[in-house]
Amino acid sequence: MRLATLRREDGGTTAVVVDDDAATPIPGAADVGELLADPDWRRRASRASGERIPLDRIPAARWAPVVPRPAKILCVGLNYRSHILEMGRELPEHPTLFAKFATALTGPSDDIVVPAHARDAVDWEAELAIVIGREAADIGTDEAADAIAGYTVLNDVSMRDWQNRTLEWLQGKNFARTTPIGPVLQTADAFALGERIRCEVGGETLQDATTDDLVFEPAALVSYISRILPLEPGDVIATGTPGGVGHARTPARYLRDGDEMVTAIDGIGELRNRIRFEGP
Amino acid sequence: MRLATLRREDGGTTAVVVDDDAATPIPGAADVGELLADPDWRRRASRASGERIPLDRIPAARWAPVVPRPAKILCVGLNYRSHILEMGRELPEHPTLFAKFATALTGPSDDIVVPAHARDAVDWEAELAIVIGREAADIGTDEAADAIAGYTVLNDVSMRDWQNRTLEWLQGKNFARTTPIGPVLQTADAFALGERIRCEVGGETLQDATTDDLVFEPAALVSYISRILPLEPGDVIATGTPGGVGHARTPARYLRDGDEMVTAIDGIGELRNRIRFEGP
Repeated sequence: MRLATLRREDGGTTAVVVDDDAATPIPGAADVGELLADPDWRRRASRASGERIPLDRIPAARWAPVVPRPAKILCVGLNYRSHILEMGRELPEHPTLFAKFATALTGPSDDIVVPAHARDAVDWEAELAIVIGREAADIGTDEAADAIAGYTVLNDVSMRDWQNRTLEWLQGKNFARTTPIGPVLQTADAFALGERIRCEVGGETLQDATTDDLVFEPAALVSYISRILPLEPGDVIATGTPGGVGHARTPARYLRDGDEMVTAIDGIGELRNRIRFEGP
Repeated sequence: MRLATLRREDGGTTAVVVDDDAATPIPGAADVGELLADPDWRRRASRASGERIPLDRIPAARWAPVVPRPAKILCVGLNYRSHILEMGRELPEHPTLFAKFATALTGPSDDIVVPAHARDAVDWEAELAIVIGREAADIGTDEAADAIAGYTVLNDVSMRDWQNRTLEWLQGKNFARTTPIGPVLQTADAFALGERIRCEVGGETLQDATTDDLVFEPAALVSYISRILPLEPGDVIATGTPGGVGHARTPARYLRDGDEMVTAIDGIGELRNRIRFEGP
């Protein structure tokens, strides 16, 4: 099953079930996060039977961040084996975790507007993101697998100059509306690691890996994090990015005004965002 | 003016105005965060005229985190001049920022319950915390000063072993209900930097400084952060801790089961929390 959040013409949003041809609104759920807060969300979604909106009649701008206001967004640092080894590092014993706030999210087709003071080193990070489907506090990996509602695509767009101002990365990872997420949540029963993950900029493929190269896999991450803090329905965990980011290239390469960035995971879908620099 | 959030007997909470003798509920505001979301919060609070609850009849356990569910909690790393210099470091050019989630907060008199897997290196960090009173996006320091609703006391209790597992500090800073905050929000018009900030454990004073030793002062922090992300009413910024934490002592010293930790800022109030270790 695929779930998404669509923007309505009146300024609100609605959660929908997406099939091959159409999106069907789920009554009473303003977005996928709100839907997941209902323990009965699977049944509610599978029974949605209202007006079917043909996909080809939904403008790109109508797709909202699939979970627009998660209470927590946890991001994992170095987590792709090939990338860690190519950097000459050892595989880590513990995942590296940092945070984003919901204000950083934007829709799967929205422009990414970069303020003038943050445009010197804007980089891409294609990531598989976990969306939590039930409360998870201090649980093992088996139970953690059941706490995952599903998966989506996220690009952890990073302002490297701000990220590296201090040891803590937060400030390069939280510019308003610069992290696209979506377009759909693919429920966990219909997704397995091993799918291809890619990032293209201006038609050139710059990241290309498979999600079975993760050092810490989704259930292990959920279990690990749940020993620290209680995860709640709608919380998002971005699982880290494979090799190929611009900052690690020689010479370094960053996003430019007008670039189209495509972030795709087979079996889920793709984000397609235009970069726009503010100011002269 | 002083604001607080009290737990009601029915399991809910209510925002109150606190004077020298009593707390007066503010109609329609479940907590101080919800109150601050109303642009008219000052007038609503100053006009509260319901039943006055004598302070000496409010059990300690009734005081909730002053802002129970902030959308964002930003914490500043090294920010006390004397502490930085005594550590032999240079004064930083930019503030170091990391995040807490609302699930980390607990009340000003609540026990701090530490799970068995996180009790080996539990440390104290007395901090002055800013509470935001209006939206603040990309603003200068003058305007930033006006965006501060007021100040409260926070102890950024830190599990040093988890904090230092990786370069990013998040996982040592986010154990559930381990960060006490409160007891009141002292509005900005009635607070000035220079007040004494202290942390006592078991009656022994372990941190003792004044808040005018901050490298990045409140309005500068709000302005800096607002250039990265939009601050919203009820957001919290913990401004950093002075010297005297346990991890920097020789030998290192940490909190133990049963310790009473007092965190106080003159002109605001104090947190008084008992440390309780879970398990055998």
